[in-house]
Amino acid sequence: MSDSRKDLDYLFCPRSIAVIGSLTGSWFGGNIQIKQLLGFGFTGKIYAINPLFESDKLQRVKVYPSIGQVPQEVDLALIMTSRNVVPQLVQECGEKGVKAVIIVSDGFAERDEEGAMLQKEIVGIAKSKNLRILGPNTVGVVNTAVNLVTMPYLMEYMNIREGSIAICGQTGNIGPQASALQELRYGISKICDFGNKADISELDILDYLGNDPKTKVIAMHLEDVKDGRRFLAKAKEVVLSKPVLVLKSGRTEEGAKAAASHTGSLAGKDEVYDSAFRQAGIIRADTITELLNFAKTLAYQPLPRGNKLAIVTGTGGGGVMGVDAAVRIGLEMARFSEKTRERLAQLFPGLENNPVDIGPAMAARRNIRALHQEAIRNVIEDENVDCAVIILPRLMTGIETSIEIFRDVKERLSKPIAIWDFGLDRPHTNERTQRLEDADIPVYSEIEDAVKALGIAYRYSQIRSRTSQSATG
Amino acid sequence: MSDSRKDLDYLFCPRSIAVIGSLTGSWFGGNIQIKQLLGFGFTGKIYAINPLFESDKLQRVKVYPSIGQVPQEVDLALIMTSRNVVPQLVQECGEKGVKAVIIVSDGFAERDEEGAMLQKEIVGIAKSKNLRILGPNTVGVVNTAVNLVTMPYLMEYMNIREGSIAICGQTGNIGPQASALQELRYGISKICDFGNKADISELDILDYLGNDPKTKVIAMHLEDVKDGRRFLAKAKEVVLSKPVLVLKSGRTEEGAKAAASHTGSLAGKDEVYDSAFRQAGIIRADTITELLNFAKTLAYQPLPRGNKLAIVTGTGGGGVMGVDAAVRIGLEMARFSEKTRERLAQLFPGLENNPVDIGPAMAARRNIRALHQEAIRNVIEDENVDCAVIILPRLMTGIETSIEIFRDVKERLSKPIAIWDFGLDRPHTNERTQRLEDADIPVYSEIEDAVKALGIAYRYSQIRSRTSQSATG
Repeated sequence: MSDSRKDLDYLFCPRSIAVIGSLTGSWFGGNIQIKQLLGFGFTGKIYAINPLFESDKLQRVKVYPSIGQVPQEVDLALIMTSRNVVPQLVQECGEKGVKAVIIVSDGFAERDEEGAMLQKEIVGIAKSKNLRILGPNTVGVVNTAVNLVTMPYLMEYMNIREGSIAICGQTGNIGPQASALQELRYGISKICDFGNKADISELDILDYLGNDPKTKVIAMHLEDVKDGRRFLAKAKEVVLSKPVLVLKSGRTEEGAKAAASHTGSLAGKDEVYDSAFRQAGIIRADTITELLNFAKTLAYQPLPRGNKLAIVTGTGGGGVMGVDAAVRIGLEMARFSEKTRERLAQLFPGLENNPVDIGPAMAARRNIRALHQEAIRNVIEDENVDCAVIILPRLMTGIETSIEIFRDVKERLSKPIAIWDFGLDRPHTNERTQRLEDADIPVYSEIEDAVKALGIAYRYSQIRSRTSQSATG
Repeated sequence: MSDSRKDLDYLFCPRSIAVIGSLTGSWFGGNIQIKQLLGFGFTGKIYAINPLFESDKLQRVKVYPSIGQVPQEVDLALIMTSRNVVPQLVQECGEKGVKAVIIVSDGFAERDEEGAMLQKEIVGIAKSKNLRILGPNTVGVVNTAVNLVTMPYLMEYMNIREGSIAICGQTGNIGPQASALQELRYGISKICDFGNKADISELDILDYLGNDPKTKVIAMHLEDVKDGRRFLAKAKEVVLSKPVLVLKSGRTEEGAKAAASHTGSLAGKDEVYDSAFRQAGIIRADTITELLNFAKTLAYQPLPRGNKLAIVTGTGGGGVMGVDAAVRIGLEMARFSEKTRERLAQLFPGLENNPVDIGPAMAARRNIRALHQEAIRNVIEDENVDCAVIILPRLMTGIETSIEIFRDVKERLSKPIAIWDFGLDRPHTNERTQRLEDADIPVYSEIEDAVKALGIAYRYSQIRSRTSQSATG
């Protein structure tokens, strides 16, 4: 294991954590962090550090006036104080033998000259003491495997589903503060907010997650890249084993300026990023939702063997929109085999075309649920079909059987599926969506999103075969 | 009033309706239509027509064996039978003096040669009898002003909020079957599914809605345009008084082929549509959600006087994404006046920049709610700001005061606002979203969507001033 990866193990898998800062905030602060570490069931030891706290206990946690006075070893410290005392605290952490520090405090390089100086000072201390810094100006990390959540803001839930998607970026925005990830049912391996990247950078995290056996997909938000050459070389290596998705913001000149005052980063020209990312096999997303949408299909569905798409729909108009989206993302509409066409036509006249529009049959037939399921089965089993979008109409509620069919397709035929849960009837679709996604079948709220996710899965399959050829060739 | 508009009044404002077809379906059919007409509180008379029904009453409605036997006048008939008997039924409607017929039945020009012949026959009969046909292959219309909802599918709700957005298109997909519009809190004036457009076309509907005082925004889905020249001329006239938004699908060659088998329409090249729409002042949307997003801001917010945008955000990263989106849609980041900058800096150091990132202040201050509200007020009152996106963080729950501020801005300063309800914590954001949208303040689930909606509002303000100049010049 590289030194950097070993260092980052202290960040993501600490055996013990010291929380340094105010312990009296009502929705932000050290006590909130401790409450949440306990609430999520963090498996390691927790200590609170505050020289002015009036008690030596906070909840179930022992409080010490300084980190030096903690009798046990401390792997990770979280610092949330005003910026001026941070250098001194990092120094004390170093002397104590702490391995990694998450600096939540802000007001450093992103604020002003003085903050930039302080940030430099901290990095110098950390280097001399051989400890690693995440941040400053970060909400920290999540590791679902050990129930580690370092969020300094109050959250209203205590469950993040364990899974294989790693989400990281230069904003707390992508983390659990912003997204109730348990409600979206994304299975998460790790989350990391880089903050100002004074020490630990996107390169370290990419390297770490690339080698993390719990992570199958890396979804990354970036405003800049510190060392472009090394980052791209590392990405080229990582994409051989798992997809790297990047949402790069600060794409416009004005956006880059805003990014500079947000995390002190300096973004380069977007076209340069675009071509460099493409060469490295990195897939770009345009919005946070796209980033998560792509990750969902890549993490929970097999890769398509080709680009031939089938659409089974209860709305003709929706089917047309799906075809448009398919062409734009590089998928082709599959031509069904004669056998499939015959079988579909037997179910109902006109069903033999792709998209398979079951709308007319829905109006004419009684046992529409069985017909729908037969249509889906025939279509997906066709050897000319590589992937499928199923548009589930609101009235089509045969969920149990649908889940069985979709599972079977995924396991036996190894073909990816994406669902558009048609209709905006939230209470209804939410329940169905939850059932489907609990069974690892991804559901999208737009037909375009469902199609695009499969297109991206196809693109990744091409990236992997291309890069593995060039690696062996 | 033109003849066409008078004819369409019978479609949208009938005094009496006859429902012709099966009265025993469990989730589709004439009895479902009647149930829903009653449930929505349709203000006119309703009759059921079925020669085989075993009773002369269905719910509170009288059943007659044929339309000719209804003793009272009938303005509108809904036909839901197998295609072969439709010509005969239209003939009978004509003889009875019915003014408009909605043909729900499918299997016409979109199915096969025989269906195309039948469709032609029906149009011939309608012309000779001076009655107008909507469809075939349509779910019909909604008019919230008279509680008219002709949906043949079972819906699970009985409330569509009355408002000023008209939604129409070539699919039931855009109507209440697909979208629980009351949950989305869009205020709707009218909905119309064109179906196969055998008689009443997008041109008739555009003309009608263009002159409908209840409709402030027209949102239209199209797969093809029958008479391009006249449609564009009409649109050019309508956009002087209200925006015309078009989602044109069948944009790709493959998509156009799929559209042909869906409603029998033949779409032309997308680039031709694109430039023709632009010249006519029509604004294009790319997805159903965009179509509704744009409509929401145009219907419920004043138009911006210029393109200078302010963003107030609780997430620095989200602010950067907002700036990127602004530049792409043709908005510019406002430069605050010196007075505003001073006031913002007094609230908290660093707040004087645009986007105004209140994140650091949130961590440092106690009364963050008041600070947030002061920041918003100062920013929006700045004379250099034409419109604003407010990113409401999950923890910022001062809804009452926010609503007051936003209302005041809209009414007194006449500046449009869009909200990004930041965070995907659905149960929480849904409640807040509902409160805001009930107060006619549009909320979006993506930062990009919020910014784009304001950009489109600015674009429409330019279209209107340009076209009104050329109309008077």
